[in-house]
Amino acid sequence: MTDTAVPLDVEAARVHLASQPFSVLLGARLVSFGDGAAVLEVDARPDLLQQNGFLHGGVLAYAADNCLTYAAGTVLGPAVLTGGMSVEYVRPARGRTLRATARVTYSGRRRAVCACELEMIDDDGSARVCAVGQGTVYPLTTS
Amino acid sequence: MTDTAVPLDVEAARVHLASQPFSVLLGARLVSFGDGAAVLEVDARPDLLQQNGFLHGGVLAYAADNCLTYAAGTVLGPAVLTGGMSVEYVRPARGRTLRATARVTYSGRRRAVCACELEMIDDDGSARVCAVGQGTVYPLTTS
Amino acid sequence: MTDTAVPLDVEAARVHLASQPFSVLLGARLVSFGDGAAVLEVDARPDLLQQNGFLHGGVLAYAADNCLTYAAGTVLGPAVLTGGMSVEYVRPARGRTLRATARVTYSGRRRAVCACELEMIDDDGSARVCAVGQGTVYPLTTS
Amino acid sequence: MTDTAVPLDVEAARVHLASQPFSVLLGARLVSFGDGAAVLEVDARPDLLQQNGFLHGGVLAYAADNCLTYAAGTVLGPAVLTGGMSVEYVRPARGRTLRATARVTYSGRRRAVCACELEMIDDDGSARVCAVGQGTVYPLTTS
Repeated sequence: MTDTAVPLDVEAARVHLASQPFSVLLGARLVSFGDGAAVLEVDARPDLLQQNGFLHGGVLAYAADNCLTYAAGTVLGPAVLTGGMSVEYVRPARGRTLRATARVTYSGRRRAVCACELEMIDDDGSARVCAVGQGTVYPLTTS
Repeated sequence: MTDTAVPLDVEAARVHLASQPFSVLLGARLVSFGDGAAVLEVDARPDLLQQNGFLHGGVLAYAADNCLTYAAGTVLGPAVLTGGMSVEYVRPARGRTLRATARVTYSGRRRAVCACELEMIDDDGSARVCAVGQGTVYPLTTS
Repeated sequence: MTDTAVPLDVEAARVHLASQPFSVLLGARLVSFGDGAAVLEVDARPDLLQQNGFLHGGVLAYAADNCLTYAAGTVLGPAVLTGGMSVEYVRPARGRTLRATARVTYSGRRRAVCACELEMIDDDGSARVCAVGQGTVYPLTTS
Repeated sequence: MTDTAVPLDVEAARVHLASQPFSVLLGARLVSFGDGAAVLEVDARPDLLQQNGFLHGGVLAYAADNCLTYAAGTVLGPAVLTGGMSVEYVRPARGRTLRATARVTYSGRRRAVCACELEMIDDDGSARVCAVGQGTVYPLTTS
């Protein structure tokens, strides 16, 4: 359960991301946040790779999880938790920067369902999809 | 795509895990490996948390991904890649150590399907499930 | 959204199943129901097959969906709805009868997470796993 | 495992669908097929409903499974099998006709990953999303 109090504009969302020690460890940054979508990037630093020089699947899973949560936060409000997700890894994650783009597919009173696409961006700006995902996010009710 | 050349006994598997920079960054360790199952642990260090002091969902997703891959490696042989997974976060991940236990549910010529349970272990040794997952792993064919 | 008012003992649950026209069309029957688990069976009638003589994947998906819902109903109470599921088809579904067995993995105030195993049963009683699944079920709140 | 020999144009695909007894039982029809996508429809007949008058979740799961398979067949060739899928039910399936639209997200030598959207179509032609899904389809190799 990813218990996340998501704020409502990109500057506040960046402050929020900076309050997650694990996101700081990975160097994640929020590129955009609003209107049912979020974009999160992580540079492919050497310490984030697996044994063959690609970005580790766990970094992709982190980016999918967190980006889905922020996208949902744009519609569910500041306090949400991610209930689950599925991710398909479709190509080796080689390139300079991982970019995760998540969009709200459905949003209701009790949850939001979001889709997410993970791309690797090269030095020349070209992008290549390396994973796709889908997740469910709940509003955190205090009642 | 998590491209992983998994070796066939626990000592060799630990050498393999040590060749993944991201696993080293997280301090992951293989507790057991063999007979269609694997156990992987990650201590809840301060830099692996989210903003409320629980282990970050991305660390759970990493552990599910990697543990599923190693479990499959015990039956598919040394060269495998994880094709996808789904994970449900069921409780906040509070405790001292995350323990991921993965088992092969089905194994055929072209893939293995594995289930995985993530527990938080407390100082007194008590365990509490915080997430469950399921994934598909492919043998890496070089043909 | 599978909106299902699940009753609390096996006889009442069978009456409930009989109120679902699609379950009647498929000839589904509840074998057991209670204590966080449910077993549902469907005979492999000729009109439930695909083009190669195996039970159609859609029948397996139906059985997973419905069995997960009933298992959750044993702990969440009579009014639940299934939010989502993932299913992995691992072997061709050949045999006389499909048996779905679902168990509650986690149950809280706002949802239950269930796992499910689908087996084909032969005339001699032997069973073979053909699919595994996982799903999330919500209590239906009328507030 | 949904073992499906998918043909390569819409007429041949309809002949193929007609060879699946379960698809005939449900009255499924292929609306379009080609270029990495497929559209499949099922009318909300009384015998396909659940107890509250909505289309049964199992019918939605059937439509997702089969539509994903046909979409993948447009790129993988005539012999494929669906390995697994995840589906999120987001609204009660009320309306006249279920329409499933699946698209190939990624296609490689060893599998295709497809996304799928399920809508209920009303008498006035209006459409409302009731479920979204994602699945993996394998080419059937005879080697």
